[in-house]
Amino acid sequence: MIQATELHTHSHDTPPNGATFDKLKCKECGAEYETKAIHVCELCFGPLEVKYNYDEIRRQVTRESIQAGPHSIWRYRPFLPVMTDTPIDVGTGMTPLVKSNRLARQLGMKNLYIKNDAVNMPTLSFKDRVVSVALTRAKELGFTTVSCASTGNLANSTAAIAAYAGLDCCVFIPSDLEAGKVLGTLIYNPTLMSVKGNYDQVNRLCSEVANTHGWGFVNINLRPYYSEGSKTLAYEVAEQLGWQLPDRIVAPLASGSLFTKIYKGFQEFIQVGLVDEKAVRFTGAQADGCSPIAAAFREGRDFIKPVKPNTVAKSIAIGNPADGVYALEIAHKTNGNIESVSDAEIIEGMKLLAETEGIFTETAGGTTIAVLKKSLEEGKIDPDETTVVYITGNGLKTQEAVQGYIGEPLTIEPKLESFERALERSRTLDRLEWQQALV
Amino acid sequence: MIQATELHTHSHDTPPNGATFDKLKCKECGAEYETKAIHVCELCFGPLEVKYNYDEIRRQVTRESIQAGPHSIWRYRPFLPVMTDTPIDVGTGMTPLVKSNRLARQLGMKNLYIKNDAVNMPTLSFKDRVVSVALTRAKELGFTTVSCASTGNLANSTAAIAAYAGLDCCVFIPSDLEAGKVLGTLIYNPTLMSVKGNYDQVNRLCSEVANTHGWGFVNINLRPYYSEGSKTLAYEVAEQLGWQLPDRIVAPLASGSLFTKIYKGFQEFIQVGLVDEKAVRFTGAQADGCSPIAAAFREGRDFIKPVKPNTVAKSIAIGNPADGVYALEIAHKTNGNIESVSDAEIIEGMKLLAETEGIFTETAGGTTIAVLKKSLEEGKIDPDETTVVYITGNGLKTQEAVQGYIGEPLTIEPKLESFERALERSRTLDRLEWQQALV
Repeated sequence: MIQATELHTHSHDTPPNGATFDKLKCKECGAEYETKAIHVCELCFGPLEVKYNYDEIRRQVTRESIQAGPHSIWRYRPFLPVMTDTPIDVGTGMTPLVKSNRLARQLGMKNLYIKNDAVNMPTLSFKDRVVSVALTRAKELGFTTVSCASTGNLANSTAAIAAYAGLDCCVFIPSDLEAGKVLGTLIYNPTLMSVKGNYDQVNRLCSEVANTHGWGFVNINLRPYYSEGSKTLAYEVAEQLGWQLPDRIVAPLASGSLFTKIYKGFQEFIQVGLVDEKAVRFTGAQADGCSPIAAAFREGRDFIKPVKPNTVAKSIAIGNPADGVYALEIAHKTNGNIESVSDAEIIEGMKLLAETEGIFTETAGGTTIAVLKKSLEEGKIDPDETTVVYITGNGLKTQEAVQGYIGEPLTIEPKLESFERALERSRTLDRLEWQQALV
Repeated sequence: MIQATELHTHSHDTPPNGATFDKLKCKECGAEYETKAIHVCELCFGPLEVKYNYDEIRRQVTRESIQAGPHSIWRYRPFLPVMTDTPIDVGTGMTPLVKSNRLARQLGMKNLYIKNDAVNMPTLSFKDRVVSVALTRAKELGFTTVSCASTGNLANSTAAIAAYAGLDCCVFIPSDLEAGKVLGTLIYNPTLMSVKGNYDQVNRLCSEVANTHGWGFVNINLRPYYSEGSKTLAYEVAEQLGWQLPDRIVAPLASGSLFTKIYKGFQEFIQVGLVDEKAVRFTGAQADGCSPIAAAFREGRDFIKPVKPNTVAKSIAIGNPADGVYALEIAHKTNGNIESVSDAEIIEGMKLLAETEGIFTETAGGTTIAVLKKSLEEGKIDPDETTVVYITGNGLKTQEAVQGYIGEPLTIEPKLESFERALERSRTLDRLEWQQALV
């Protein structure tokens, strides 16, 4: 239940001794602001980012100090925009970096790694990272109700972590979301607003609500803090590769924020001396049905034309991506690329990853795998590069997407003969398919 | 695809230097066997268990050596029945032990911990533990096809880890399983046999198949190895509590194996000196619709009367539990208890855990929470005890169970006025509910 009156007081943010951040800074004009719940520059309307004191971080952080920290994103706390020593820690982060054997062989690659946030805690997507940071900061800033505009994963994560933290919660989703994402939000008993419209309309509505209610919207007025949580996907990969950077990463693009924050994370690790300098190429993945950033890349534009999304990959269906131009810039300056793939290729990508690596990802992950495959086939990715693919969500949440595209169980009676007949049939079918494949 | 001819050769099992196990031993008559794929005593038909050399384990293991190991179940390798130094490790285990705040307060408890295997890797249930051990051993024994009889979670796990390990896989499930468990198996492309019957019928069929095909059934002919994987749920809790045992554990009962192996795990840690001796009380949880062990406990019987399952908690619906009598023994000798709860209480348990701790568990977890609540209310659990509750699976797999029992989203137009009206409505409803609750 949400309180009718919000009594939160914003803290005054005098950075305590040892604080590693003290200002927000406009990404466009450089104007500086207090570290409050604001996200847009009053002068130029550019997005605000957290400004760190990297000398202070360098004083506080070593490889050893990180390794001695908790097995979660909070081992990197000095790089994250919170003051507290007791952040909300439900085991988020430190997901496996799986060295791929069978997928790599199938794609002809030598050093392929899968960063598996399909098993991130508590709600099985990378959003648990950004929400853990945002809600920790929300509590510091005195908020008692938190909110978000979501394509589903963020709704799950905000509702779950708010429940754990005892915060009131109201989340906004487009009304056509997958059943698993709706139920996977409602179970935590937030107020859930299902908006008749697409994500971009939901997002616009939430911007208005953020101005009229005193709520902490994780991806609106708390966005400068929230988005920093994605940097942990860079830190963990660097640490898990033995304090080295990969040659290339492949990641899905929705708002573009994840992409830019992985880039920022690598740069920060270089800057404070935790890893050697290295040029990492960035490959971005979109669905054909919502590919405004891929289109700009393909057409050599430096601006994004918003689109109306129509794809099975709902979690990345943002037609007007807030950080699209920054993602575009990163793809260009790292000699990377941004590609899109069809819904059919996305489903094939999901199946390929499950069959070869035992990882069941949602549509966004299928998009990423499909773009990896396509970029290899088109010679845009060198198969000898050390490549890290980011899998950002779990397939149990988007079951509709693959239903009808995977096999059926063989229904049998509980008798040996019935089983033997079914097994023989399935082997015959396998042989026929195999023979057809050879024709 | 499954090969028509199995060419595996069983190894000769001369234990190498440093091996910590060398025999299987009948739990009933003590007869010893080679460490092959057998599970039943030829003399008395009792179940076989792995026999360890605890002196050798004590020589190899310290708290420090465990902490220096991988962040997975394999940090406890000397306690597990595999020879290899390179087990199948996809990050399974080391799930969070969450100190409960909000649920504990609601139940009036002081020291409640939740062992959260709803986020176990890769397939979000404790079955990933037993399957990681079973398939590692299956490879050592030369199997190329693995199989199982499953109520769902085991099917997910066997199919996923077999895919990762490159093993052929055929799994058997009852035909009335939840959609998420069926799709969450098919996605890995095993041969999936959907059997018209309940789990006990599936299990009987599989016993016959195990005798006629040379397959490694993880929970039949590989059961002595497989079941040992559950001990890691005891080891992790002891380590995560700072090398101490809790006063009590609460766990779900299906076959009863999990319960007996948590007990064995604690005893082993005491035996090799990793923790101090302590009497831990064991509380077992069943659903009213399938409660043969709870009924035996209640009626003071030392034998189990099989039942026909009829409950929403399908993953623990085993009417003829293989280790039921052993579970019963443990409840008695630890001064514990075994209780059952209704389907309505199970769903309330799922909601309670989600709303207070942000953990979305499946029906088995709802059963465990409901039994905790009931035992507290009936004075069978002392609220001051340090209690660990085992949550063994994820709610995204059993969405049907709660659909219709949780709230609905508020559907709105993408306009501020529409949102404000909906919010006002929901607050009025909340107030009415609250007033009604006070009447």
